Amino acid sequence: MERSCLAVILAAGESTRMKSNMSKVLHKVANRPMIAHVMEAVGRADVASAAVVVGRDAEKVIRAATIPGIEVESYLQTERLGTGHAVLAAREAIARGYDDILVAYGDVPLITEAPLIAARQGLAAGNDVVVIGFHTDRPTGYGRLIVDDGELLAIREEKDATESERAINWCNSGLMAINGRKALDLLGRIGNNNAKGEYYLTDLVEIVRSLGGHAIAVDAPEQETMGCNNRAELAVVERLWQERRRHELMLSGVTMIAPETVFLSYDTKIGRDAIIEPNVVFGPGVSIEGAAVIHSFSHIEGAEVMAEAEVGPYARLRPGARLAEHSKVGNFCEVKKADIGVGAKVNHLTYIGDSIVGAGSNIGAGTITCNYDGVNKHETRIGERVFVGSNTALVAPVSIGDDALIASGSVITADVPADALAFGRARQEIKPGRAKLIRARNMAIKAAKQPKG
Amino acid sequence: MERSCLAVILAAGESTRMKSNMSKVLHKVANRPMIAHVMEAVGRADVASAAVVVGRDAEKVIRAATIPGIEVESYLQTERLGTGHAVLAAREAIARGYDDILVAYGDVPLITEAPLIAARQGLAAGNDVVVIGFHTDRPTGYGRLIVDDGELLAIREEKDATESERAINWCNSGLMAINGRKALDLLGRIGNNNAKGEYYLTDLVEIVRSLGGHAIAVDAPEQETMGCNNRAELAVVERLWQERRRHELMLSGVTMIAPETVFLSYDTKIGRDAIIEPNVVFGPGVSIEGAAVIHSFSHIEGAEVMAEAEVGPYARLRPGARLAEHSKVGNFCEVKKADIGVGAKVNHLTYIGDSIVGAGSNIGAGTITCNYDGVNKHETRIGERVFVGSNTALVAPVSIGDDALIASGSVITADVPADALAFGRARQEIKPGRAKLIRARNMAIKAAKQPKG
Amino acid sequence: MERSCLAVILAAGESTRMKSNMSKVLHKVANRPMIAHVMEAVGRADVASAAVVVGRDAEKVIRAATIPGIEVESYLQTERLGTGHAVLAAREAIARGYDDILVAYGDVPLITEAPLIAARQGLAAGNDVVVIGFHTDRPTGYGRLIVDDGELLAIREEKDATESERAINWCNSGLMAINGRKALDLLGRIGNNNAKGEYYLTDLVEIVRSLGGHAIAVDAPEQETMGCNNRAELAVVERLWQERRRHELMLSGVTMIAPETVFLSYDTKIGRDAIIEPNVVFGPGVSIEGAAVIHSFSHIEGAEVMAEAEVGPYARLRPGARLAEHSKVGNFCEVKKADIGVGAKVNHLTYIGDSIVGAGSNIGAGTITCNYDGVNKHETRIGERVFVGSNTALVAPVSIGDDALIASGSVITADVPADALAFGRARQEIKPGRAKLIRARNMAIKAAKQPKG
Repeated sequence: MERSCLAVILAAGESTRMKSNMSKVLHKVANRPMIAHVMEAVGRADVASAAVVVGRDAEKVIRAATIPGIEVESYLQTERLGTGHAVLAAREAIARGYDDILVAYGDVPLITEAPLIAARQGLAAGNDVVVIGFHTDRPTGYGRLIVDDGELLAIREEKDATESERAINWCNSGLMAINGRKALDLLGRIGNNNAKGEYYLTDLVEIVRSLGGHAIAVDAPEQETMGCNNRAELAVVERLWQERRRHELMLSGVTMIAPETVFLSYDTKIGRDAIIEPNVVFGPGVSIEGAAVIHSFSHIEGAEVMAEAEVGPYARLRPGARLAEHSKVGNFCEVKKADIGVGAKVNHLTYIGDSIVGAGSNIGAGTITCNYDGVNKHETRIGERVFVGSNTALVAPVSIGDDALIASGSVITADVPADALAFGRARQEIKPGRAKLIRARNMAIKAAKQPKG
Repeated sequence: MERSCLAVILAAGESTRMKSNMSKVLHKVANRPMIAHVMEAVGRADVASAAVVVGRDAEKVIRAATIPGIEVESYLQTERLGTGHAVLAAREAIARGYDDILVAYGDVPLITEAPLIAARQGLAAGNDVVVIGFHTDRPTGYGRLIVDDGELLAIREEKDATESERAINWCNSGLMAINGRKALDLLGRIGNNNAKGEYYLTDLVEIVRSLGGHAIAVDAPEQETMGCNNRAELAVVERLWQERRRHELMLSGVTMIAPETVFLSYDTKIGRDAIIEPNVVFGPGVSIEGAAVIHSFSHIEGAEVMAEAEVGPYARLRPGARLAEHSKVGNFCEVKKADIGVGAKVNHLTYIGDSIVGAGSNIGAGTITCNYDGVNKHETRIGERVFVGSNTALVAPVSIGDDALIASGSVITADVPADALAFGRARQEIKPGRAKLIRARNMAIKAAKQPKG
Repeated sequence: MERSCLAVILAAGESTRMKSNMSKVLHKVANRPMIAHVMEAVGRADVASAAVVVGRDAEKVIRAATIPGIEVESYLQTERLGTGHAVLAAREAIARGYDDILVAYGDVPLITEAPLIAARQGLAAGNDVVVIGFHTDRPTGYGRLIVDDGELLAIREEKDATESERAINWCNSGLMAINGRKALDLLGRIGNNNAKGEYYLTDLVEIVRSLGGHAIAVDAPEQETMGCNNRAELAVVERLWQERRRHELMLSGVTMIAPETVFLSYDTKIGRDAIIEPNVVFGPGVSIEGAAVIHSFSHIEGAEVMAEAEVGPYARLRPGARLAEHSKVGNFCEVKKADIGVGAKVNHLTYIGDSIVGAGSNIGAGTITCNYDGVNKHETRIGERVFVGSNTALVAPVSIGDDALIASGSVITADVPADALAFGRARQEIKPGRAKLIRARNMAIKAAKQPKG
């Protein structure tokens, strides 16, 4: 868009009903603070500047709102005198003279760019105010949009509405675009001559019209305009977000056997013909390539899974895990900051951290890379086609050469050359008949512990 | 309430459709037998005495029904001749002369105290019978409440109802309060002159009125009156219970990202600003303090998690686990009967049982406390700031002093003093080139196993 | 049924909207390719021969369609000219002269035998065409069934329907039975004089009637006729299948606390009074006997769990796991191709593969059977009442006699006789005060790594 635009993001809500020690807009949806979702939509509506009106947790809110591509300024709202007053907290920014002012809310995170763009186009078409409305089956409590011949005449509050106006199911979402050249003037005309003595943004419609200007309404899906006032609503918003994104992924060629049990993050990427089994959780920063299989009960965060790799069940991939093609990380395995090579297998009860596992290597059950000495983290390097026997501890820093074998139950503290066999375990001893004696002794101990009767 | 009250709990149902070897009322909702939920509600309605009318599994049913604050007697129902007859199985208790008799059902477990209290207040206001009704969109099959000017005239069974009566959507739940002073007389007047030859409690309404007394109906939410006749209905009741409790917790300040995947027990306590990720199961006896984080795939039972502690993903806390502030139990870890000190970390693939882990200690991946010798359980005591290397076995009884270090892969059988380093592992040996030979031998074995062709 | 029948299964769809590299009918529902579900229903409708009309992935499709009891032939569809043309790809089979021809679809997998049998009975009653219809609240887009006095007059496409015809909510599912003796003649009369120039099977109704024959419609539940055109629809079909099967199991006496979180396979068997906790995944080939308990987060495939055995939480049973009565496999345990004896316990962090565990044995936490040497798999045999201490590696092939004891932390490479005590671990050593020195050294290393400022 040729026109300049400032988004004013209202994010100073008290969030009493959240019963939280944290600002409402910092609560997360899809592992991202709500306000960041709003900023994302604003950015996609081609807005490059935002004035965030903050109260509580101001610094954290601004940090959360700062996403690439948008210049963010912070304005403190000190009094709570209504939305019209709140927007004016950003007076300094508005005064710079943008073509468009877009008012959005930090706790309305499902909004997408489409209605925002429509609202800006409404301004471009010569309107001074464009209200974003939504159609609903349950309009009770919302301000109704009174429209005649395409012109928005007023936003009528429930209590002021006539019976026929109450039947209107097109409602005010609160989101709005305002002619930026006139915004300060218009906002300054809002009065507080009402029951609560507050300044309502919705008055702008009638103000604009009284000045001979035009107002219209554009539409958004009801879901996109939903706000969050308590944690039950937060859970609903999360569910709606998840349903939307799961559906997109399925239509793009991802199989989800039970999509309602797959939890995505805002930035989860999954390729075509990947299969996601029931009960999988994706934290932030995950990329799954095509035809990979993610089995049930996997938990993946900050990890990259390449084509035809297999994960889980019960695999935990932590940040920095990179699984190459055809590799496999199986049950009760944790992989952190580690490259698993092409076709390598880490199948059972294993912890691989700060490591490189070469192509074709097989890591036995119960293997632990001991990467932490209590102070520093160290690296384990495993070559190609290495076979690590079960229940082995690899004490980092340590390096295992290609084609080496590590015997089961070993503690490996020194480098192992290529092709070598390494072991570090005690010789087995057998004491015939001794089990019987030990059991008898243990039974006697137990008997001695019993209270005398 | 000043008035005395006896609850008569009907719990002798045959439960054929449950297809179970166990009495229906013993099946659990939220990890508690259904009948115990009923007793809880009755107790909250200020009832201190209950006569439980039992059939099958009588002893177990009485044990399940016995909760603090209510004196429970057992009456055996030998014949199945209708609800009116069943209540009279408790004739001896009723004859004692309570002010109020409250009739409830062992398989209607969602009932809360509110309608029970309302029913008792109805008696206190001078009515002889108070029926608990519910409004429903699907009244078909239920007895309709015929009410005129606040007076309950009759409970009309479906088959006897006129068309206009069938349109009534206020129905009989079966729960009822009866004037305790008149109860034996009233119950004795119920006849069995009907198709099935049974004695119906519902006849009381018309009996009371024929004697010049008054009957009214009070309302309960439909859900609260739902009974369980098969396991599909049991699952529905469980779901409704869970939804109700999750909602309460969310409104009180608990974040649940996907509430429908969090399973609570009847006594689960969770504090404000705690975060419960998707897929968490709470068994009985759990208390989670504020700002604790429970990651996905955690399973917690009989455990206490203090403020800002972190659990999971994939953590299993069993009875007696106590996690102090800022402690952390991570993936594939099981903790049983153990105190985890302030800031202590048990992060990977570990079993801690019958143990004390001091503040600030770090338990390496793959650590096992060997608490069981096949006969007795023994204790492991780990001091503060101890570092236990990975893949270590701590053979209890054993004690590790403050600030000690245990080398990876050790088997620790004797106490370790403070500040000491302990190890118990074999020296590593390397056989250069040997891996090649072993592989060749294994390949030869494999080849020899192949069927000759 | 006395009458012979050929099923013609259309399975050549392009499945563009699936965005898949695999034929649509190979996508799985309940762990079985969709087309195999269709074949199952066809077989239950007493059909012994099927002609599968294939396109892409022909060989795999035929393999998936081949189930016991049905002889399957493959016919290649080379052009896409409508359903009428597609059925004629199987001309050679139809020409053999069956009594009945049944047309079904590889991507309509929820169909059951009931409507198919009803359709065949319609042929037996003298009709030449029997269309399987479904009632729906949303008929828009479907062909409406125009029926008069039991006779099916026509299938009216949306675009050709009058307003009153559009109000009809009985629609064409596409499934159809055709008089096998007349089928080739009838199919040959279908023309392509329409907008798309395709041959529509639905024309058969009017063709039959124009020849003086009779057509009728029979009904199927809407769900059973649902097709899959993209992966979101595939997920819906999966959900409907799961809901149907869960409900059946619950009514038969299986408790599912949260049925919506239990995922069954097409062949999962569960006995009466078994309890399935939330979040359990059943792969193919599972049989659970009565009164077994499957705790949350279990993943079971190809395994048999006998009466009163206990599984999980977090247990993974893989193919060939057999758990005897009263045995227990607990958290973070994996069992593959192994018999767990009566009352035996495998409770924590253990991998048991290619093994036999005798009755009453107790396998300590962190035990690993090292069954793989990188080339061959070997067997571990554990006798009865054996106690295996924690963190033990059993290097197969190896055999442990009855009543033996294995000390914690051992690596067992040689057979252990009955009643013997075996150990294989290093002696513990203690270096007093050494921990302090090591920490100081590690801190120095850390400090040295810090960038100089």
